[in-house]
Amino acid sequence: MSVTKLQRSNNAATEAELQFTANGQLRHLLTLRGLDRDQLNDLLDQSQEFVTVPGQSVVRSKALLGKTVANLFFEPSTRTRASFDLAAQRLGADVLNLDVNTSSRKKGESILDMIYTLEAMQVDVFVVRDAEAGVPAYIARHVNKYVSILNAGESDVSHPTQGLLDLLTIRQHKGEFENLIVAIVGDIAHSRVARSAAEGLTTMGVCELRLISPPTLAPAPGTFPEKAKILHDLDEGLRGADVVMALRIQRERIVNLDGIPGIDEYFARYGVSHERMKLAAPGAIVMHPGPMNRGIEIESSLADSPRSVITQQVRNGIAVRMAVLSTVIQSLASQ
Amino acid sequence: MSVTKLQRSNNAATEAELQFTANGQLRHLLTLRGLDRDQLNDLLDQSQEFVTVPGQSVVRSKALLGKTVANLFFEPSTRTRASFDLAAQRLGADVLNLDVNTSSRKKGESILDMIYTLEAMQVDVFVVRDAEAGVPAYIARHVNKYVSILNAGESDVSHPTQGLLDLLTIRQHKGEFENLIVAIVGDIAHSRVARSAAEGLTTMGVCELRLISPPTLAPAPGTFPEKAKILHDLDEGLRGADVVMALRIQRERIVNLDGIPGIDEYFARYGVSHERMKLAAPGAIVMHPGPMNRGIEIESSLADSPRSVITQQVRNGIAVRMAVLSTVIQSLASQ
Amino acid sequence: MSVTKLQRSNNAATEAELQFTANGQLRHLLTLRGLDRDQLNDLLDQSQEFVTVPGQSVVRSKALLGKTVANLFFEPSTRTRASFDLAAQRLGADVLNLDVNTSSRKKGESILDMIYTLEAMQVDVFVVRDAEAGVPAYIARHVNKYVSILNAGESDVSHPTQGLLDLLTIRQHKGEFENLIVAIVGDIAHSRVARSAAEGLTTMGVCELRLISPPTLAPAPGTFPEKAKILHDLDEGLRGADVVMALRIQRERIVNLDGIPGIDEYFARYGVSHERMKLAAPGAIVMHPGPMNRGIEIESSLADSPRSVITQQVRNGIAVRMAVLSTVIQSLASQ
Repeated sequence: MSVTKLQRSNNAATEAELQFTANGQLRHLLTLRGLDRDQLNDLLDQSQEFVTVPGQSVVRSKALLGKTVANLFFEPSTRTRASFDLAAQRLGADVLNLDVNTSSRKKGESILDMIYTLEAMQVDVFVVRDAEAGVPAYIARHVNKYVSILNAGESDVSHPTQGLLDLLTIRQHKGEFENLIVAIVGDIAHSRVARSAAEGLTTMGVCELRLISPPTLAPAPGTFPEKAKILHDLDEGLRGADVVMALRIQRERIVNLDGIPGIDEYFARYGVSHERMKLAAPGAIVMHPGPMNRGIEIESSLADSPRSVITQQVRNGIAVRMAVLSTVIQSLASQ
Repeated sequence: MSVTKLQRSNNAATEAELQFTANGQLRHLLTLRGLDRDQLNDLLDQSQEFVTVPGQSVVRSKALLGKTVANLFFEPSTRTRASFDLAAQRLGADVLNLDVNTSSRKKGESILDMIYTLEAMQVDVFVVRDAEAGVPAYIARHVNKYVSILNAGESDVSHPTQGLLDLLTIRQHKGEFENLIVAIVGDIAHSRVARSAAEGLTTMGVCELRLISPPTLAPAPGTFPEKAKILHDLDEGLRGADVVMALRIQRERIVNLDGIPGIDEYFARYGVSHERMKLAAPGAIVMHPGPMNRGIEIESSLADSPRSVITQQVRNGIAVRMAVLSTVIQSLASQ
Repeated sequence: MSVTKLQRSNNAATEAELQFTANGQLRHLLTLRGLDRDQLNDLLDQSQEFVTVPGQSVVRSKALLGKTVANLFFEPSTRTRASFDLAAQRLGADVLNLDVNTSSRKKGESILDMIYTLEAMQVDVFVVRDAEAGVPAYIARHVNKYVSILNAGESDVSHPTQGLLDLLTIRQHKGEFENLIVAIVGDIAHSRVARSAAEGLTTMGVCELRLISPPTLAPAPGTFPEKAKILHDLDEGLRGADVVMALRIQRERIVNLDGIPGIDEYFARYGVSHERMKLAAPGAIVMHPGPMNRGIEIESSLADSPRSVITQQVRNGIAVRMAVLSTVIQSLASQ
């Protein structure tokens, strides 16, 4: 199954539509495209009810009692897998963790045969992470109507629950989105986190969205909302920003990238630091999807400072995944 | 611990007897040999009560509440492990998943010391898969009387829960076994699936059992019920068959096998196809234990056709494992 | 993060103190140092209530319902991980199993960022095993006050739940500690098991503690309680002993060790055998933390003899871990 074939068979418009049942309820979560402002706000409102703080008991419910959630990770993950695992357990679901090596997929059975097998074991929700674009939608097109697919990270295309937790975190700090300037900084080209955040923020009507990266890591045309401004100068990008999101960059990518010879120079040019944050709006928050390369894309002490909402993002991640799981299970039941 | 020593210490007759408590209840499931027709029918009846269809709530019970099931897989497995894991969870058991590398077993502690350790942690049921013949029975001979061993795949010797799910699937479609012609096709010599199915079908009194394979992959003498007919011509084997079971063949084995130079020729000679199925009885069903090599041992579109009961086999697998787990737990309690 | 830096930042006295809340309750279990005799006896009394024998139902409670236990193993483990996993499940906790490759830790995020991430997911108890000294205390110093750290094996420094289960097993057989002679035999230098046992036994006021090893494997100065006698002659060490604990030795270490050319000679000089046990006190028990190298550090038939309490140690391990988990959860709640 080649990337090209998959992408061709997954038309963008229909992928967004595919997510809803006939009566308009969210059944799969593949991308934030196709969810309008009310639908996003509904999910954020529900997520907010699952948010707890340290020392408080976690919210537990039996919303998924008797239901089965399979975490099907074709790409290794610790934090996202843990987050979905705990979200499902706290809702009373049975959980099946399957870490599947992609190379074994090539030799072995087709991905659909694996899905059909697990579907026949009455798995209700598949949480899918895959390095190949189009896989979650491809699966969603083929499962029976009692099954939901949640995208837990898809190539450099989409990571919708991450997008939702980013929106929730911003809303908790800033309230409305209309007047916000949001700056996303780093390896934009390869970032599914940036794409899902950009899609969500655009729908929420953010005032200005800036994507700041070395020229080589700028987004390919058509991959991000048109509204987004593409910039290469960090100072320009941070000026007046209310929200600054630093992205993880793979160290291997920093090899004389646009004349940036090494890690120190990358930090000097594109690292988000205390000094740089002086250009941002007063009260601006700093975000990062994790895991962080401290001292590369973000100054270590900034990540631990009161401006940083990074831990809160993780906390919101559990809440968002509980809300999404509850929503799709209800949607499956009401068909 | 060498294969030869293990096999010598596991006399066939006593292995079958070993499965029952003093008062005749099923305590271990090591092989389908030794279970008579009534006992098989009892297990199938119980399994049937656990069968559910998509959209229906899964059957849940507390039959294993407070009990511990350890999945001890010395050979990698996705589907069988998942099936036992979910079956145990849906009965309320605590589940321990241990994927143990066989090579580490050689260097490390003996298999019995590992079992004694887990037994001391009050594991009630061990689900054991092993590439070496005799291991499940060897373990069963050494555990204390409060412990049950379930064979989840043993070398090329036995896979009894697979055999049961095959029987259940056939019974659901054909009712009685007495008048049936069953054809098993492919790598018979190395197939624990074929052996358990053949043992179960023989006990159920099937009219005719045919084992069809290239000569090199025919069963070794004495490994299958005597009643089975050994054939090398697929057309002859399929003629009038009510049930056709295709077996997985490892691609590496198709290397000028009996003059079959490659995969295409294997499919031409031994692949189960729509065209070939015209020789079978009207209403014949097609089975496969999975994972399938589409286009090698089975025509891809046949696997997805209404004749195919492959998905139903997987569904029945959960039900059979729930029935077996419930049965052995009751049996342990009644000693 | 280098070993030296970690050790320097983890002063011994304060590490022992760090374990308690302001009102003196046990919150972390990092080491047995710092627990006085009453505190140890309390834990042993609680553990005893969780002990069950084969055929008896396991003790289950809801003491950890709604709580999350994360098994964070930076070193591979089957038995200790399984023991904590089952202990947590039987108390009603949600369990997250994370087997983290240490090499990936080097490339990836810092250990604290991983902990902060899981802490933000509302993990209540981290069970940590690490090959590096100081890691559990280092983590304990940095988590918020609603989180507990349990040391599940730390380099060659500490393995406190193993120490507790050893104490419990000895108490079950011998009652009081004051008159006991305890002999620990084998690779003392590299044994966290020996160190935790020695610390616990010293606090319990054991009459005599002997550490017997080849000279090369004797403890480094200051690593064991001063009270312990360091011996190199097994016969001298066993004479009159009430408790004999054999330690696992890595085969690779037996390479012309103090003139011991191989495994047979190691067994002849330092193996605990039936013959050797004649020197011990009548009724002396034989212990081993597992996994055993039969025929190297212990005679195989001795391990299976009535003198051996090895299986009972494992059984007690579950009970001790249930007691510790219950204790720290109560302690967190009462802050």
